[in-house]
Amino acid sequence: MSFPASKGTKFVRVSGRFVMHRGGYLEEPTIAYETWGELNAAGDNAVLLFTGLSPSAHAASSVENPASGWWEGMIGPGLPIDTDRIFLICINSIGSCFGSTGPATNMPDTDQWYRLNFPVLTLEDVANGGYEVLRHLGLTTVHTTIGASMGGMSALAFCIQHPEVSERFVSISSAVRALPFSIAVRSLQREMIWRDPKWLDGDYPPDDPPISGQRLARKLGMMTYRSAEEWELRFSRERIVYDEAPGNQFRGDFSVESYLEAAAVKFTGQFDANCYLYLSRASDLFDLAEHGGSLEAGFARVKLKKALVIGVTTDILFPIHQQQELADGLATVVDEVVFKTLDCIKGHDSFLADMDAFRPEIQRYFESC
Amino acid sequence: MSFPASKGTKFVRVSGRFVMHRGGYLEEPTIAYETWGELNAAGDNAVLLFTGLSPSAHAASSVENPASGWWEGMIGPGLPIDTDRIFLICINSIGSCFGSTGPATNMPDTDQWYRLNFPVLTLEDVANGGYEVLRHLGLTTVHTTIGASMGGMSALAFCIQHPEVSERFVSISSAVRALPFSIAVRSLQREMIWRDPKWLDGDYPPDDPPISGQRLARKLGMMTYRSAEEWELRFSRERIVYDEAPGNQFRGDFSVESYLEAAAVKFTGQFDANCYLYLSRASDLFDLAEHGGSLEAGFARVKLKKALVIGVTTDILFPIHQQQELADGLATVVDEVVFKTLDCIKGHDSFLADMDAFRPEIQRYFESC
Repeated sequence: MSFPASKGTKFVRVSGRFVMHRGGYLEEPTIAYETWGELNAAGDNAVLLFTGLSPSAHAASSVENPASGWWEGMIGPGLPIDTDRIFLICINSIGSCFGSTGPATNMPDTDQWYRLNFPVLTLEDVANGGYEVLRHLGLTTVHTTIGASMGGMSALAFCIQHPEVSERFVSISSAVRALPFSIAVRSLQREMIWRDPKWLDGDYPPDDPPISGQRLARKLGMMTYRSAEEWELRFSRERIVYDEAPGNQFRGDFSVESYLEAAAVKFTGQFDANCYLYLSRASDLFDLAEHGGSLEAGFARVKLKKALVIGVTTDILFPIHQQQELADGLATVVDEVVFKTLDCIKGHDSFLADMDAFRPEIQRYFESC
Repeated sequence: MSFPASKGTKFVRVSGRFVMHRGGYLEEPTIAYETWGELNAAGDNAVLLFTGLSPSAHAASSVENPASGWWEGMIGPGLPIDTDRIFLICINSIGSCFGSTGPATNMPDTDQWYRLNFPVLTLEDVANGGYEVLRHLGLTTVHTTIGASMGGMSALAFCIQHPEVSERFVSISSAVRALPFSIAVRSLQREMIWRDPKWLDGDYPPDDPPISGQRLARKLGMMTYRSAEEWELRFSRERIVYDEAPGNQFRGDFSVESYLEAAAVKFTGQFDANCYLYLSRASDLFDLAEHGGSLEAGFARVKLKKALVIGVTTDILFPIHQQQELADGLATVVDEVVFKTLDCIKGHDSFLADMDAFRPEIQRYFESC
């Protein structure tokens, strides 16, 4: 199995060493990205988008690749991220497996994947991957840096590491750092994978990865991406109707179980296990307070004209009080901070699953600046 | 490995067939139980206690067994369940592995465990196991039936199946039925076990059970037994300090991870995997509405003088609105229903981990009737 970048993906080969935030380096890594729209004459309409843990840079369909992207309906002509006016750049995180260098790409001058030889990955590195793309494109500033979930933390890392570049910041369902419940969730997801006998200390054959562990991890993910309220309305205690008896009596009685199974099956083979482990741990390691020694010092590093923070009340992975913390901190150093709480029922995933609630907020933001 | 009942455990051998709620039967099963205190002359001071999924009948220390029980500090002379005045009977659930017949006890006239030959288990069966103990003790009524978590549903099943027996009912952090989020949690816990290659379709050797899956399941359990708020206060982002480098970089960075690891290690070997699967599924299958076709009809089956329903605001496994639903439903058919909401921070486990909050409520209840 390999994870080719989709059509329309562009690549930057970094010249020389890419020094990693927690030590080590990558020799001439590749950063994959996609773009939509055109840079305007003034050069002031570029928007930099960082993704959550698992998406590729294919955020929306394009002429080169008409397949739907992960934020389809948000990005395009006349849509809230209006590509008639905005030059959008979406970054495939370094360490991911959709074109950027990561644990599932070859080490230099070998035909061997990095696997666990990949250095410790952080969201600071992901942010710097975006910076390399901007340098390649000749951009010294971007209108807005935006990200959701893990991407919001990568975007925040970008704003504090390159304060002269990003003029504005949009954070969606993200945080200044992970709290123990979210760390516990991701830690258990990682353990499900590395305890899978097929993980083989990261040396699984590409065509025989630790699927069982990855599927369990995906199910736990779904349980924290959505909300109990949504499932109560959607599934209640509806039963599975089997055409034939299931393999064992523990394979599932309720529709919520077949929903999780379908989600896990759909994800199967869609992501490299080692890349997942690295990016998941990077999400836990990020802490704004490590930039300067305190949250206050971290916030003091941004130079932003404006920020928008959006959160969802039913989010258990990045709970609403963490959105408040981010907005409050930004407000100490940024003149214009908008904090928007959405009462969506679909939890953390609402920015994908309840686009009707998010579109007006993103549209209003870009119309206002 | 075996799971002997502890000293002080008593046993009832049911005569003849014990018919299971969803079909099948057990031939002369054994029900294990413990008692504290003495039946009074009027015979009106017996209290029947059902346990959560994993505890044994050893709810408190006793002369026969001075080891601490799972509800130590709640039960004993002068304590809220005052064994100077109350004759307490705690039931080891049928299907469990601490003396009662279950998947890890031998089938009749063989030296082979039941394993998956055990019929589908329900909390109605667990309740009927308690009834067999009462029959053996010559009791036709009990002052109160009480249970927490799964035990609350078993106690409710008892009250609707034997309405002439139970005069009062105390439910702690329980529900009339599981909702999809809790079903999803337990379903994933079960899958972690049955996907463990060592499960062997339930035929693992007693000394080589699917420990890895059981440990993962325990960790997920802990994540739903406690609360994000507690962990934020308790662990924040405190780091593990390793004496030597961990085996792989994904073994844990944060104290919350070592806490979960310790909890999983402590539970290792403490419960039979097949018994866990059966009791976990039984928790999902229970639905008061199946008794008569609706919740209203189910509630109409109880004949209680009084009921107490206690819930905790931070409980994500049996959320507070389910406590309200239970109390409201009981109030339609029971003259005196007390509903008490506790603001404990330790989530579902508060009845064990925040005894100071629970003791006054239980004490007030028994003093008032």
